[in-house]
Amino acid sequence: MEKRGMLYEGKAKRIYETNEQDILWIEYKDEATAFNGEKKDTIIGKGRLNNEITSIIFERLREKGIENHWVKRLSETEQLVKKVTIVPLEVVVRNIMAGSLAKRLGMDEGTVMDTPIVEFYYKNDDLGDPLVTEDHIQVLNIATPGQLENMREMGLQVNEVLKEVFATINVRLVDFKLEFGMTNDGELLLADEVSPDTCRLWDKDTNQKFDKDVYRRNLGNLQDGYQEILNRLGGSSCTK
Amino acid sequence: MEKRGMLYEGKAKRIYETNEQDILWIEYKDEATAFNGEKKDTIIGKGRLNNEITSIIFERLREKGIENHWVKRLSETEQLVKKVTIVPLEVVVRNIMAGSLAKRLGMDEGTVMDTPIVEFYYKNDDLGDPLVTEDHIQVLNIATPGQLENMREMGLQVNEVLKEVFATINVRLVDFKLEFGMTNDGELLLADEVSPDTCRLWDKDTNQKFDKDVYRRNLGNLQDGYQEILNRLGGSSCTK
Repeated sequence: MEKRGMLYEGKAKRIYETNEQDILWIEYKDEATAFNGEKKDTIIGKGRLNNEITSIIFERLREKGIENHWVKRLSETEQLVKKVTIVPLEVVVRNIMAGSLAKRLGMDEGTVMDTPIVEFYYKNDDLGDPLVTEDHIQVLNIATPGQLENMREMGLQVNEVLKEVFATINVRLVDFKLEFGMTNDGELLLADEVSPDTCRLWDKDTNQKFDKDVYRRNLGNLQDGYQEILNRLGGSSCTK
Repeated sequence: MEKRGMLYEGKAKRIYETNEQDILWIEYKDEATAFNGEKKDTIIGKGRLNNEITSIIFERLREKGIENHWVKRLSETEQLVKKVTIVPLEVVVRNIMAGSLAKRLGMDEGTVMDTPIVEFYYKNDDLGDPLVTEDHIQVLNIATPGQLENMREMGLQVNEVLKEVFATINVRLVDFKLEFGMTNDGELLLADEVSPDTCRLWDKDTNQKFDKDVYRRNLGNLQDGYQEILNRLGGSSCTK
């Protein structure tokens, strides 16, 4: 596989074409951002940790029958994925009240919900990634009702698998964000990443945070929590 | 009917008990507020206009089979209504893009939607009346899925009636907000008011605004537009 020209550079990843039309080469960066880019830092090792964790998670999801764009890990910071056109929605699944939703509803962070909830946010930096309803998504014309229903169902399926994966390593899956893409064949595929950048992960005993809230809220070293997750998942524990 | 003690004073109305247990006495006030109370003024005649317009609209809705809390107009600024417990949701129906939704989605005000959309906002001044999804409403435990479905359907029915009412007076119904309440018998009933305070109403030929945006955006005298709507609806045109 050959790496070709860069297609896109996002906040956390660089995406390159390859010599295969349907395969992209992803490089995870060491940049951390929060609050729509207002807070920004370089955190050595973050790219490696997210690449390793995402690779483990996507492989586990596939083993459990949840197809996704991940093809293989190439190196500590690189992976190959199937090429998709990203649907500009963040699909958020929540088990425990936290973050922006706790503020929106005026509820305490940590409240356990009776059933998981699914939300859609419109991926648009200029607008600050606003919450949108299914009616709004129809107005924006970015996904059909059928695709939305698929994303909701796949979000809940991923939740069931991830809750179990994290429960076995003594971690509570508070919430997480997924992105989906369309393949050239029109298949809706789970894409992007699943990592402590995109999940809230709390230690089951101590509620210690192992996720990006450590960075957002200045609670300590982000890498320590990410490394802890990678270690517990059984991944490489070396730090280069 | 006797007016008894005041139950509640809101931004635009005072609500009193009566000698009948299931009937409330409403006084419309001359106060205008916007932006969650940040902008506030007394506008002489506003209470009369909203009381008159709401009385006409609720009567028309009833004639078209849409039951609601309105019982009768008592005076220029007073009406009787059935007692309900208000569901703390604003049900917004939109035909044309405007206001907060245009900002949220980054779309031009005035864009006509293919089909009307329905939104729910959580009535909570401290939180700024946030947009909520049906999942959020379940977490807040303020309406059942069946009640939400009823509110959505009734919102769309009200929209059909109001679009016709306003079309016959050469006015475009851009969007409007409804509130519902529960009777003692557990019946979901359309409540609150339907007036230029709660609807966006644009002249069909000139797009002149006849609604509270005139106040919100400092476009002129709010009363003139409200009076124009009342006149066109065939209501009393006297100004006291």
